Amino acid sequence: MKYPNNIKKSYKKEINYKNRGMNLESLINEACKYYVHNDLAIIYKKPTPIGVVDVDYKNGAVINKAYFKEPSTLDYNGIYKGKYIEFDAKECASKTSFPLSNIHLHQIKHIEKVLKHGGIAFLIISMNNNYYLFKGSDLIEFIHTNIRKSIPYSVIQDLGITLKVNYNIGLDYLKGINDAYKGVGYFEDTKD
Amino acid sequence: MKYPNNIKKSYKKEINYKNRGMNLESLINEACKYYVHNDLAIIYKKPTPIGVVDVDYKNGAVINKAYFKEPSTLDYNGIYKGKYIEFDAKECASKTSFPLSNIHLHQIKHIEKVLKHGGIAFLIISMNNNYYLFKGSDLIEFIHTNIRKSIPYSVIQDLGITLKVNYNIGLDYLKGINDAYKGVGYFEDTKD
Repeated sequence: MKYPNNIKKSYKKEINYKNRGMNLESLINEACKYYVHNDLAIIYKKPTPIGVVDVDYKNGAVINKAYFKEPSTLDYNGIYKGKYIEFDAKECASKTSFPLSNIHLHQIKHIEKVLKHGGIAFLIISMNNNYYLFKGSDLIEFIHTNIRKSIPYSVIQDLGITLKVNYNIGLDYLKGINDAYKGVGYFEDTKD
Repeated sequence: MKYPNNIKKSYKKEINYKNRGMNLESLINEACKYYVHNDLAIIYKKPTPIGVVDVDYKNGAVINKAYFKEPSTLDYNGIYKGKYIEFDAKECASKTSFPLSNIHLHQIKHIEKVLKHGGIAFLIISMNNNYYLFKGSDLIEFIHTNIRKSIPYSVIQDLGITLKVNYNIGLDYLKGINDAYKGVGYFEDTKD
């Protein structure tokens, strides 16, 4: 497989750190970069799964036809303090409840598997101008004990860990992980 | 983002389990499926990173122009017995040595980071009709202590763990992980 470096450069995006209107994904991506750069965690967004149909190898491997595939796992994964981490970012337009239709069924099954194998899985939900880390275990329990097809905002406020945007970092979700999983035997050296 | 399910179906590939001529990646992908299906490990191949330039949303989100991007991490990652796992598959045409140019510099740096954060990182090398699990730590040490630009086959035979193709599983690399990392405090319950 060829990597046309000459093409890559022209599409590189410049991130504007001062832009307060960044969307959830951008704020998380900024934090991932900060964490990797400062050697705090190694977490990356997985590439969007794409099915390639037609490639023009004559002109530097330009893809002429492809399509988006449905993700079966969560968007971000990596390692933090020796632990496997996986999560997804979900923006919620509703002010009253988070529709479970936002999460694919195979993603829910995947979360259950990750938890079973000793990993940490969660959602980061953007709702009512706030950001919440909502634990995978709370999500699974809600689904198993409710017939509702959406999670009321009050439940997200009660169970979720509020995440803050830090000017230097982006959305500081590692602090949220420390808060959410301290005292449950996940991390030995969690101090804050 | 729309997922055109109707398009997806027509490109779905059927895997032929009886095909003994499967390449390294296919053999690993089969094993990943087997492990997930039998709840032994949750390890997936990351999608190939692709930069999308133009999308036709009128016809079900068909991508009309895109390009392959250079991967900065390894191809496969996930969780096994609570441990973060990441590895890459490398087919080596040379019979005498494995060229280090097969591994991107940022991939080597990434392996170093994963090891530092307590994860397990390695290469699966296909060479001379054999398959080897070559530990990330051995790779890093070789690079730091040699001026050679390739790893001699004898070194790969000495340090590598031989992996076997199992008819039901594919390339049984979990067995290789057990062999490679037993007795070094990685897994508490490794028996074989």
